[in-house]
Amino acid sequence: MREEIVSELRSIVGEDWVITGEDRIQGYLYDETPPPMLPEASKDVAVVKPRNAEEVSEILKLANRYGLPVFPRGGGTGLVGACVPTMSGIILSLERMNIIKVDRENLMAEAEAGATLADLLKAAEDVGLFFPPHPGDEGAHIGGLLACNAGGARAVKTGVIRNYVKGVEVVLPTGEILTLGGKLVKNNAGYDLMHLIIGSEGTLGVITKAWIRLYPREAVNATIVIPFEDREMALKTVPAIFQEGLMPLAIEYVEKSLVEKTAQHLGLTWPCRDGDHQLILILAEASEAALYEACEKIVNICEKMGSLEPLVAESRGEQERILKIRSEIYSFLKPNLVDILDTTVPPAQLLELIKAVEELGRKYNTYLPVFGHVGDGNLHIHLMREDGWTKEDYDRLRDEVYRKAIELGGTITGEHGIGYIRRRSLEKYIDKKALELMRAIKRIFDPNNILNPDKVFP
Amino acid sequence: MREEIVSELRSIVGEDWVITGEDRIQGYLYDETPPPMLPEASKDVAVVKPRNAEEVSEILKLANRYGLPVFPRGGGTGLVGACVPTMSGIILSLERMNIIKVDRENLMAEAEAGATLADLLKAAEDVGLFFPPHPGDEGAHIGGLLACNAGGARAVKTGVIRNYVKGVEVVLPTGEILTLGGKLVKNNAGYDLMHLIIGSEGTLGVITKAWIRLYPREAVNATIVIPFEDREMALKTVPAIFQEGLMPLAIEYVEKSLVEKTAQHLGLTWPCRDGDHQLILILAEASEAALYEACEKIVNICEKMGSLEPLVAESRGEQERILKIRSEIYSFLKPNLVDILDTTVPPAQLLELIKAVEELGRKYNTYLPVFGHVGDGNLHIHLMREDGWTKEDYDRLRDEVYRKAIELGGTITGEHGIGYIRRRSLEKYIDKKALELMRAIKRIFDPNNILNPDKVFP
Repeated sequence: MREEIVSELRSIVGEDWVITGEDRIQGYLYDETPPPMLPEASKDVAVVKPRNAEEVSEILKLANRYGLPVFPRGGGTGLVGACVPTMSGIILSLERMNIIKVDRENLMAEAEAGATLADLLKAAEDVGLFFPPHPGDEGAHIGGLLACNAGGARAVKTGVIRNYVKGVEVVLPTGEILTLGGKLVKNNAGYDLMHLIIGSEGTLGVITKAWIRLYPREAVNATIVIPFEDREMALKTVPAIFQEGLMPLAIEYVEKSLVEKTAQHLGLTWPCRDGDHQLILILAEASEAALYEACEKIVNICEKMGSLEPLVAESRGEQERILKIRSEIYSFLKPNLVDILDTTVPPAQLLELIKAVEELGRKYNTYLPVFGHVGDGNLHIHLMREDGWTKEDYDRLRDEVYRKAIELGGTITGEHGIGYIRRRSLEKYIDKKALELMRAIKRIFDPNNILNPDKVFP
Repeated sequence: MREEIVSELRSIVGEDWVITGEDRIQGYLYDETPPPMLPEASKDVAVVKPRNAEEVSEILKLANRYGLPVFPRGGGTGLVGACVPTMSGIILSLERMNIIKVDRENLMAEAEAGATLADLLKAAEDVGLFFPPHPGDEGAHIGGLLACNAGGARAVKTGVIRNYVKGVEVVLPTGEILTLGGKLVKNNAGYDLMHLIIGSEGTLGVITKAWIRLYPREAVNATIVIPFEDREMALKTVPAIFQEGLMPLAIEYVEKSLVEKTAQHLGLTWPCRDGDHQLILILAEASEAALYEACEKIVNICEKMGSLEPLVAESRGEQERILKIRSEIYSFLKPNLVDILDTTVPPAQLLELIKAVEELGRKYNTYLPVFGHVGDGNLHIHLMREDGWTKEDYDRLRDEVYRKAIELGGTITGEHGIGYIRRRSLEKYIDKKALELMRAIKRIFDPNNILNPDKVFP
């Protein structure tokens, strides 16, 4: 990068907050995307760490002047390469903007983009409040959670991040600082630009602050592991639970062999030894009595559906251990992983998707581990390394999965987003006119195409 | 309207479904906007009643060919003139598209745009499910509820309509039929065009169908009326309730004198005679025990905050009577009403807004009845007819209210939207750049500006 640009950047954010040099920028180039899918990062980049929206604005104006790509970066926990600097340009790291204030009277957190999910959870808990969703990695930054409209296991009851965001401060690619919404439960003043920014993966604006609705904490939790001999029976139990008027916080499906191996890898033991297929339910209720009643109802339903003996974990320690193991399946698989999908279908159609995936495994002679958020129809399907396979082999298999998901009324991505690695698939699997509208919106917001310029669209 | 156009319309929807002639179209010209604010409707219009999205598409293509304005119309329950045909053109009434199917396994209603809120509530109830929000008039159509992102009293706990919509079928002004989302709890495939359509007040597309998430019904309800001598004490009780970890479905504020007069007007009696200022709380809990506990906690908090004796209504009949009276305040005021505002501020700032409104009432020497959804900061302020006042007098007063709301971190409209009558205010009170982006988005979706062409933007 030209020295004069670096020097202008230093004059915006201060000497210490512009980082160059291959060694020092190394930690800013990639995210959690499986290595075989990762695009190559340009090394000709400067990492810039602004302190506030005004500095972000100055950086974006400079980028417009020089026609320089800008890659906003949060916690780097994404799985689709959305923050990878695929060209020479500026990595805009929001890490210094990490203040969270909780307004108890309005049940709102005001969080800067670089605060982490862990910070938010803690800030809420410190004042006896609660942020209901839990989209996985607690190192994710608020800006990234919003930019990707993160989902996670608890979306069954609570919905995705979008539902909790009531306002954002965003810096447009052209440098204007907009406040959209605020500490407002309702706002209908014109088109909802805030919801357009949420989920736009750092291509329409740089989110610098958010107002996030908090809730009083549900008093008590329990985690139940329910073993089944048979996958079909396990999955058919999900709609049966809903139909009885129960609404768990999360309903996850795992293969016992996979979760046992993950536990072993972590030096832990998976507590439920029965059945090859297991559901993990998290319940949150307002009182011990309500929790007891819900547990009892669920155990009854499951037994009626043919489950083996459910395991109810009530202590916080045991619950956390179960969820820790569940959440580490990805890390366990990662060394041999080529790609992790997050296809989503209507929840009652998930069984059909899983059967199709089994069938594809046989057809392609490969093991396709699946687990996921079955309560909301969101399935993580893993493409594993196979000797002699080429990129085209994986593409063909992935395409078959996507086609099936679309056929079942689903989407190619329920939570991970498009980023860099799903651009061709977006083009292929959404309506041409919808794509045309999205591209036109991108041009309105970012006429010089400087902000994350090669993401989302092929 | 030219006879050839009418005849083409008849060939699209069938002879019976194109209505012309001043007498016959009368019921399609206006909505519930207070008459002094209503724009004048053109009488040179044809009412067209398509049966499906394909017919809507044909109508919009024809409108593009002839450069003819199209005014989509639902239940006509809006309060800002959003569906009034202010120019010669087509009134597109979705009333024939009114089928609702409930998919119990996926907890989703598939509702056509012309079905009513009452239809949706009933369809859900018939299968033991529940649509949590309740944005007022049950004659509202699904299409309109989405187009206006309706709010209502229950938004305190449940949020606004937007949170429940998982998919829409929409016909673009240029005639393409798009399905955005579906029976999907999660969907991150590209920019969220669905959320852009929701709240766009019939200017970006004609919503023809929606997939709406339903929930298991909370088992039991109670309605509590809590009287206070003093308005300030009543309003300070609201954050106190949240801080104790309670989350009622609704928290409404009313002046006793106003609600008593409304009851009298309906031939009913308002059940709570104490105090001049009252909160109405609706609680929904999973069990009798949980409901009892929540009631007890709330009564304790209120007493600590200085309330008089609360009135707890548990029978469905008594609860319905209370809510009926509350919901008819608008009709009671309407004969002398000039405008109803729905300014929204952070909930804890509502007291300050009300005090400012009282002050303005004194300054302008007029009575400004207020009531509203205080749990979510959404206040209905009524400008009443005053002898000798001109339009400018009302404009000046309204502007002072808006300025105060903005100063408190609020918005000029929390639920009613912009429609026709708030266009100048939108221009005045939102960021210029935001307005520019909205206008550019409108041009992308509707290059010939045929769809509700003079709404939202001045």
